[in-house]
Amino acid sequence: MDIDNSQLGLDMNAVGREMYQLITELFPICRSITGNGVRESLRILQNRIPLEIHEVSTGTKVFDWTIPKEWNIKDAFIKNSHGEKIVDFKNSNLHVLNYSVPIHKTVPLMELKEHLYSIPDFPEWIPYRTSYYKENWGFCLTHRQYQSLQEGEYEVCIDSRLEDGYLTYGEYYLGGETEREVLFSTHVCHPSLCNDNLSGIALTTLLANYLSHQKTHFSYRFVFIPGTIGSIAWLAQNEQRVSRIHHGLVVACVGDAGKPTYKRSRQGNAEIDRAVMHVLKHCGRDCEIRDFSPYGYDERQYCSPGFDLPVGSLTRTPHGCYPEYHTSADNLNLVIPESLSESFRYYLDIVEILEKNKYYLNLNSKCEPQLGKRGLYSTLGGRTDAKIAEMALLWTLNLTDGTMNLLDIAERSGMTFHQIAEAARLLKEHDLLAPCEKQEG
Amino acid sequence: MDIDNSQLGLDMNAVGREMYQLITELFPICRSITGNGVRESLRILQNRIPLEIHEVSTGTKVFDWTIPKEWNIKDAFIKNSHGEKIVDFKNSNLHVLNYSVPIHKTVPLMELKEHLYSIPDFPEWIPYRTSYYKENWGFCLTHRQYQSLQEGEYEVCIDSRLEDGYLTYGEYYLGGETEREVLFSTHVCHPSLCNDNLSGIALTTLLANYLSHQKTHFSYRFVFIPGTIGSIAWLAQNEQRVSRIHHGLVVACVGDAGKPTYKRSRQGNAEIDRAVMHVLKHCGRDCEIRDFSPYGYDERQYCSPGFDLPVGSLTRTPHGCYPEYHTSADNLNLVIPESLSESFRYYLDIVEILEKNKYYLNLNSKCEPQLGKRGLYSTLGGRTDAKIAEMALLWTLNLTDGTMNLLDIAERSGMTFHQIAEAARLLKEHDLLAPCEKQEG
Amino acid sequence: MDIDNSQLGLDMNAVGREMYQLITELFPICRSITGNGVRESLRILQNRIPLEIHEVSTGTKVFDWTIPKEWNIKDAFIKNSHGEKIVDFKNSNLHVLNYSVPIHKTVPLMELKEHLYSIPDFPEWIPYRTSYYKENWGFCLTHRQYQSLQEGEYEVCIDSRLEDGYLTYGEYYLGGETEREVLFSTHVCHPSLCNDNLSGIALTTLLANYLSHQKTHFSYRFVFIPGTIGSIAWLAQNEQRVSRIHHGLVVACVGDAGKPTYKRSRQGNAEIDRAVMHVLKHCGRDCEIRDFSPYGYDERQYCSPGFDLPVGSLTRTPHGCYPEYHTSADNLNLVIPESLSESFRYYLDIVEILEKNKYYLNLNSKCEPQLGKRGLYSTLGGRTDAKIAEMALLWTLNLTDGTMNLLDIAERSGMTFHQIAEAARLLKEHDLLAPCEKQEG
Repeated sequence: MDIDNSQLGLDMNAVGREMYQLITELFPICRSITGNGVRESLRILQNRIPLEIHEVSTGTKVFDWTIPKEWNIKDAFIKNSHGEKIVDFKNSNLHVLNYSVPIHKTVPLMELKEHLYSIPDFPEWIPYRTSYYKENWGFCLTHRQYQSLQEGEYEVCIDSRLEDGYLTYGEYYLGGETEREVLFSTHVCHPSLCNDNLSGIALTTLLANYLSHQKTHFSYRFVFIPGTIGSIAWLAQNEQRVSRIHHGLVVACVGDAGKPTYKRSRQGNAEIDRAVMHVLKHCGRDCEIRDFSPYGYDERQYCSPGFDLPVGSLTRTPHGCYPEYHTSADNLNLVIPESLSESFRYYLDIVEILEKNKYYLNLNSKCEPQLGKRGLYSTLGGRTDAKIAEMALLWTLNLTDGTMNLLDIAERSGMTFHQIAEAARLLKEHDLLAPCEKQEG
Repeated sequence: MDIDNSQLGLDMNAVGREMYQLITELFPICRSITGNGVRESLRILQNRIPLEIHEVSTGTKVFDWTIPKEWNIKDAFIKNSHGEKIVDFKNSNLHVLNYSVPIHKTVPLMELKEHLYSIPDFPEWIPYRTSYYKENWGFCLTHRQYQSLQEGEYEVCIDSRLEDGYLTYGEYYLGGETEREVLFSTHVCHPSLCNDNLSGIALTTLLANYLSHQKTHFSYRFVFIPGTIGSIAWLAQNEQRVSRIHHGLVVACVGDAGKPTYKRSRQGNAEIDRAVMHVLKHCGRDCEIRDFSPYGYDERQYCSPGFDLPVGSLTRTPHGCYPEYHTSADNLNLVIPESLSESFRYYLDIVEILEKNKYYLNLNSKCEPQLGKRGLYSTLGGRTDAKIAEMALLWTLNLTDGTMNLLDIAERSGMTFHQIAEAARLLKEHDLLAPCEKQEG
Repeated sequence: MDIDNSQLGLDMNAVGREMYQLITELFPICRSITGNGVRESLRILQNRIPLEIHEVSTGTKVFDWTIPKEWNIKDAFIKNSHGEKIVDFKNSNLHVLNYSVPIHKTVPLMELKEHLYSIPDFPEWIPYRTSYYKENWGFCLTHRQYQSLQEGEYEVCIDSRLEDGYLTYGEYYLGGETEREVLFSTHVCHPSLCNDNLSGIALTTLLANYLSHQKTHFSYRFVFIPGTIGSIAWLAQNEQRVSRIHHGLVVACVGDAGKPTYKRSRQGNAEIDRAVMHVLKHCGRDCEIRDFSPYGYDERQYCSPGFDLPVGSLTRTPHGCYPEYHTSADNLNLVIPESLSESFRYYLDIVEILEKNKYYLNLNSKCEPQLGKRGLYSTLGGRTDAKIAEMALLWTLNLTDGTMNLLDIAERSGMTFHQIAEAARLLKEHDLLAPCEKQEG
């Protein structure tokens, strides 16, 4: 990778604002695991990256699962006996139980209540609920609305269609020097919810756009898929090619104010795990590392034992751990440009590590080379900086025996990857270091 | 093992009472490392389990040791110059230095005192002392008794015999599906002492009886032996067969109110160690894990380097760590039925783990299988329970790649073995899992 | 090694005094990385040990470095315009920038100041500064002196020579039963500085002298070399022989009152690392273990990746961590005989471990041997001592399966190496143990 993140030339504030802008644009659309909402969203992303759109037919077998019918919805409401719309899909697409079958009838309050979902603890918020694999219909509403319901008859109408069609996903492949791939996967199935996961969509899109202008060592694959069934479908269609994936991250919940949180891959100590943990350790703020668990987002599928890919997930507050999660309060107020740009920066730093984390051989391995005669002591700027840079040179020389890559060296020395990578660059420039294959210890 | 400990159908209170009853019955007998006391005790155990009795002749060489003469005793006393019995074996068999040679003579106080043992710190307690391998005679008495001795002549009488005979031990073998064995070993050489080790004898007996009514995978061997020389004799006589022992525990001190304490085997992280530690970690109360040391009970012999068997020891307060240890205060007041039944329960839970701790293969290892269509989400009862059971299913599916057994999975997931074993059972029932041999990682 | 450190017969107070005496004798000499100061110092050491003197010519290539010109100095001063000597080399050889080129001229204050070094924070101390590889001249003085300088002309005179010559070092080799070597390396290039490193020179000399009177298993090599260039030269000249070095320590800063501090070798857990850490763990006072870093003394060269020798460094307060470091305050007041003798004792204890740390095989590995019949219980002195000695016997018997050496056994048992080594000696005496080669675990 030619880029040095410390001299990005990127206006990070602008990046945060652009991500927020994209989230705002995508927010109104009613997405689900299939249907036109996903198509429309991917089309918007195509304004920024040349996304390839894939359609998988209803009924297609993908491992133990089957692509379901495609769901689309035009309108939905509940009218009271006075003919007043008391719940209206047009106000919020969360009002409808996602994947509701079409219905239009009049029901008494008692029957209606069996199809209503609200959150007593947060009476102003509408919950987000789904019923993908069991045919059902329902409405989500605030608990205030729920409590104000009077006895009587209600007209319920859901103008949806559940028919044979397709599951839609987007994919963007960026070739690099090698066919070995880095995967970024983000889910696109949630309706008007911002942190989960318009934030992930926005970050992935801008990261893809940014990397498309760089020369990279790895190839990069960005997939925009509905959760669970989407990653299962993608894995089923790409089963022969997944061995190319050397590192991967599931991108989600990257826009709230919470601390960065990394969920390790199933492997637990893969290079991607170590790269992310290194970035977070040195990010200058509180962060959290969680062990893998077979719950969460699509890392569940990438890390199923038959694949066991080195795919972790870097979020801010994880799914289920903030009260606004899967409610109407996960809206444009919950995500903030500063958090989005900070998250973007972590992802860039991780990419920098993956790109530059190579093995080198000290070409003067017996005793230290004389750095002074090469001007490697004097040209190093201010005093503290000079001392740090000198230590980075000495550590890099001492540990480049071919058994440790630059991240190993950074971790053993306690220095940052960036300091070690810069030392390696300088030493290579002075013919004191040469790239090599990994040596046995 | 067909039994599910959570549905034992065992009345644990009754088990505790029965153990206490057995201890009460065995308490009065004067046992030693040889002699009729051991024979009588084993005969009482034969009322509950079909114990095989073995006799090893005096003089038999067992590794570096030799079976000593057999010791039996009828009576012993000290009379003062008024002819009053001031110390009487009939009051407590601890009064005689165990293995005292016969003696009957009159001695002045000064000479007598060289053969007396008391405990100044606990003046009401009689100590328990032995002299197995050096011919000697002596009396143990309370420090009160000791202090009240007046100058004068004393008649000392020990009506014992130390003659060629036998060392006696009991053994019970329960065959299972495999010849691989689980060993439970308990020492039977202590006279009227309850926690050390009538509690161990009682627990081992009831455990043997309970397992004799179960269908088990492993074979189980229960040995009731005098300490040190007994286990050495048993190992000498079974040297060719010990390789069958895959797991083992030395049972002792299981009746006091102290916290459960596990002493690891010499191997330190054998399956038995991990099984016991798992049970204690989840037992809901404070417990202690101690590293192996070459001191204590018969694990010293089982874990000698030439055998190095995976044999630990699960006690409550360990030997030497309670003040009543090896005194007359280790009596029927020190052991309590509740502790006995709690200890019994730990042993059962350990057996359950050993029996069920197998390797399985996820038959849908690529991506998660669709649990919903199999009813594996809905049939799971209450909400919290359902969530736990669902996580157990997901963890079990994710980790059954053949390199981890169910205990490994329980430990990595942080769930209990029981939850994981139940998940494995359900998944196997739905053809999602199959037993397998251990795979290389 | 025949010696048992616990019965050394060494008067440790006398050892401390003798080290202090040697430091006092060496203190006035102006040493540098080359020149007569080093020669004179080594000659003084020859009064105690038969040091071999080596001379390496100027211009000799040693790996990436070249032996510099030889530097010698007769006198140096600064005179003010009244002709008064205000800085005089005769008062302290630290006054001259070490390796200053000859100069004799009159300069105005402003120009003079470019060649002056002082320490504002410690205005009474003269700093120690060098310029080995860049030709320069200069004076070091107290900040009080510096501040009292008036405007005007100053006569500066440095009567030094920088000419082709030699780098001088000393070496003493003590043959043992095996050609495998233990290396002790100490730097001899510092002028009138006591802790760094006359203390190291004194300790190494007395250690060499002491060991020359012992029969040892290992061979011992003591090198007295100028820092950096000296160890590089030595390694270049002995490149083919360094594989004989099995353990090594760089000796420095062993005379101050600070706590013992061990810097691990690059390998991190080599036998020398474990031996030193064992000694410090049981030394009865606070101590510190530091990980290796490629900075410090000559361990930087011994631990360069092309050699990666198991060489650590045992000091008291490490270089750079005490305020007097590299100043005139590192004088005869900073080092104290008690610290010197204590440090000497640690080095002896380490040597004892290296010498005795062998593998043994328990010849009665199945069950414990009967210690009582061999008198191994009764002959063990007082009660607590007897208990400790008995546990040492049991641990040693239990763990001498040939996979663990005595240090391994000491560490696993939590006992001291000395206790375990004594147990091994006793058991060997009773034919219960035999030396063996390391067995695979």
